[in-house]
Amino acid sequence: MSDSRAAIADKTAQLLETMRAARPLVHNIANYVSMDVAANALLAIGASPAMVHAREEVAEFVAISGALVINIGNLSMPWVEAMLLAAQAAARHSKPWVLDPVGAGATRLRTETVRSLLPHRPSIIRGNASEIMAVAGGAGVAPKGVDSANTTEEALAFALSLAKHGGCIVIATGAIDLITDGRRVARLANGSPTMAKVTALGCALSSVTGAFAAVGDDPYDAAVAAVAVFGIAGEIAAERAKGPGSYRVAFLDALESISGRDIESCLKIVD
Amino acid sequence: MSDSRAAIADKTAQLLETMRAARPLVHNIANYVSMDVAANALLAIGASPAMVHAREEVAEFVAISGALVINIGNLSMPWVEAMLLAAQAAARHSKPWVLDPVGAGATRLRTETVRSLLPHRPSIIRGNASEIMAVAGGAGVAPKGVDSANTTEEALAFALSLAKHGGCIVIATGAIDLITDGRRVARLANGSPTMAKVTALGCALSSVTGAFAAVGDDPYDAAVAAVAVFGIAGEIAAERAKGPGSYRVAFLDALESISGRDIESCLKIVD
Amino acid sequence: MSDSRAAIADKTAQLLETMRAARPLVHNIANYVSMDVAANALLAIGASPAMVHAREEVAEFVAISGALVINIGNLSMPWVEAMLLAAQAAARHSKPWVLDPVGAGATRLRTETVRSLLPHRPSIIRGNASEIMAVAGGAGVAPKGVDSANTTEEALAFALSLAKHGGCIVIATGAIDLITDGRRVARLANGSPTMAKVTALGCALSSVTGAFAAVGDDPYDAAVAAVAVFGIAGEIAAERAKGPGSYRVAFLDALESISGRDIESCLKIVD
Repeated sequence: MSDSRAAIADKTAQLLETMRAARPLVHNIANYVSMDVAANALLAIGASPAMVHAREEVAEFVAISGALVINIGNLSMPWVEAMLLAAQAAARHSKPWVLDPVGAGATRLRTETVRSLLPHRPSIIRGNASEIMAVAGGAGVAPKGVDSANTTEEALAFALSLAKHGGCIVIATGAIDLITDGRRVARLANGSPTMAKVTALGCALSSVTGAFAAVGDDPYDAAVAAVAVFGIAGEIAAERAKGPGSYRVAFLDALESISGRDIESCLKIVD
Repeated sequence: MSDSRAAIADKTAQLLETMRAARPLVHNIANYVSMDVAANALLAIGASPAMVHAREEVAEFVAISGALVINIGNLSMPWVEAMLLAAQAAARHSKPWVLDPVGAGATRLRTETVRSLLPHRPSIIRGNASEIMAVAGGAGVAPKGVDSANTTEEALAFALSLAKHGGCIVIATGAIDLITDGRRVARLANGSPTMAKVTALGCALSSVTGAFAAVGDDPYDAAVAAVAVFGIAGEIAAERAKGPGSYRVAFLDALESISGRDIESCLKIVD
Repeated sequence: MSDSRAAIADKTAQLLETMRAARPLVHNIANYVSMDVAANALLAIGASPAMVHAREEVAEFVAISGALVINIGNLSMPWVEAMLLAAQAAARHSKPWVLDPVGAGATRLRTETVRSLLPHRPSIIRGNASEIMAVAGGAGVAPKGVDSANTTEEALAFALSLAKHGGCIVIATGAIDLITDGRRVARLANGSPTMAKVTALGCALSSVTGAFAAVGDDPYDAAVAAVAVFGIAGEIAAERAKGPGSYRVAFLDALESISGRDIESCLKIVD
């Protein structure tokens, strides 16, 4: 049984308020393309971002952070090592951590990196439909680079299985965003097609999910709240933008201004 | 003999439409400064960008891409190795590839990296006048960092020679943009002085050139189309911007909105 | 004894004009998050940026630059080596250089990297209050990631001591910005709270400080001018922006348009 729309809107508005008051430090191992927009999205929503990826300091930094976000967009052997050290440190210090399996399935290195990270038990995995299917081990899944070739509904069985076996929350984003803990499934329909025309907004959502996970008791509620806030800000931005350049600007403005009232009035839950 | 203005405008409009319909995956080995704006420019114009530079996966990624763009802005030994592996893979898979020799001539490492890449036969080389002169082996060429100290007309003889001996297309960008295959020369005069006040727009043009090369049969036509579309979008942006910050935003909006009609009415060919 | 407001405004306006005319090449070892905005800030204010960090070429590049800016935001062993080589080259070629000790005190690697750079005599050190306290060796200084937990007034004694012993200028930025050479202290109160909601603007200030240091005879005057121009542009931007996204855009526009008259009318000196 799923929560009602009103219950989700209420929890989301409360979590947003709690997060802004706590201003959690979110440690990101982001990628070169996403760092700027992810850091700006975290600042706009009210969190405190740090981008730290040196093997020599990641474990130490995880210990002082509220949450960790590992995005595999940039792969090279030193970064893969840093990701493993950071994931281990998150487990050791009981810090929530979010895995963003960018381009999983596109090359062996990506698939193998994800496989080596999964045993360190991410709290939340956030990807597009093709990435979630690849992580869950779907045969015949052929993503086109880093863009999805599948709908999130096609990824549902994979997401449920991944959440159940991994003991984690899975977010599959697309026209409809799915969030599941392996039992409950939330379907959110906020957002705008222009989001896919601005690079790294998916990565930025993973980072924002880390901010909510840092303050939420239940990672499922944190995941739903992050996806809801992000999508609603995406709709507010669409009203103001003339194209992908002005969309990104309006989106960061919307992340800062978004209120509980916006959430109450705009949240779209699909049954 | 060169094409008429009408013929160039017509080919460019057709290539833009073909490219948007195909939505080619463009594999970029970009630099840290240019990744964000290059990825956003590719998304805005209608292509699908990926930034992949790990030695362990570049060759595999080239095979699934429509074109490769190598920008030498970021040099370090692992990146240089990845560039060589990617260029070899492009040759092996007959994928068009674009070389952007950022800062060639400024340090020995840059000059040597370009020399090691040239035997792998880039389809198109895109640089400012000083860079093209340095790549062609011009003596006494002293670029000031990554900005050009020369006009493109001064670079013409170097560009012709480089294109002839390399069997490639050469684009030298500046107030007047030159495109040559060693025989034909096109001179385009679109663009805006504000483009030089936004970082990495030259790199973004190299990436957009890759998108056109991925779908064009003739790399010369693809190069001309990319330069034309980029310059015209630059003029549209200039009408809306108040400074370099708003210029970048307006430019990305213009890349998305630019139409065949804009090309017909705005293309400036210099004889 | 400190300069009067009128004298500071006058010197700052003159230095801005001199810098724009000279268009100095500023060599940055920046970080992945700050590169884009730092390069765009340098272009907007009228300087020529380059981001170069390979061990193989940094020393050569310092020799052709007007100033060097080392930002320790990105740490990994190859980068630390490059920072040391660049700092040595700056000393050898008598080039002014600016140190930005991002996150000093947060991890051992950061504290140690700063300690290894200090003997190479930076001309100017620019950090937030917590970073300056950590660099000066303040016990019990616990920054929260990369954000400051202290006011600049709390950092004053540390800044004075660091400037005296290091023979350098120290800039501590915050609601009130302090600049000191160990003897004189300037307190500037320009800027906007929104600056803290846009990532890497502190790093961008360090880069802009490098541009002024490249043309100023006295690094103290250069430091004051950079802080003044940056803060005043920050106030102009605040009038136009609706949130952190549009603030960044308006800020870059303001850096380009800021004039001597803006400085005369807006400069805020605190006694």
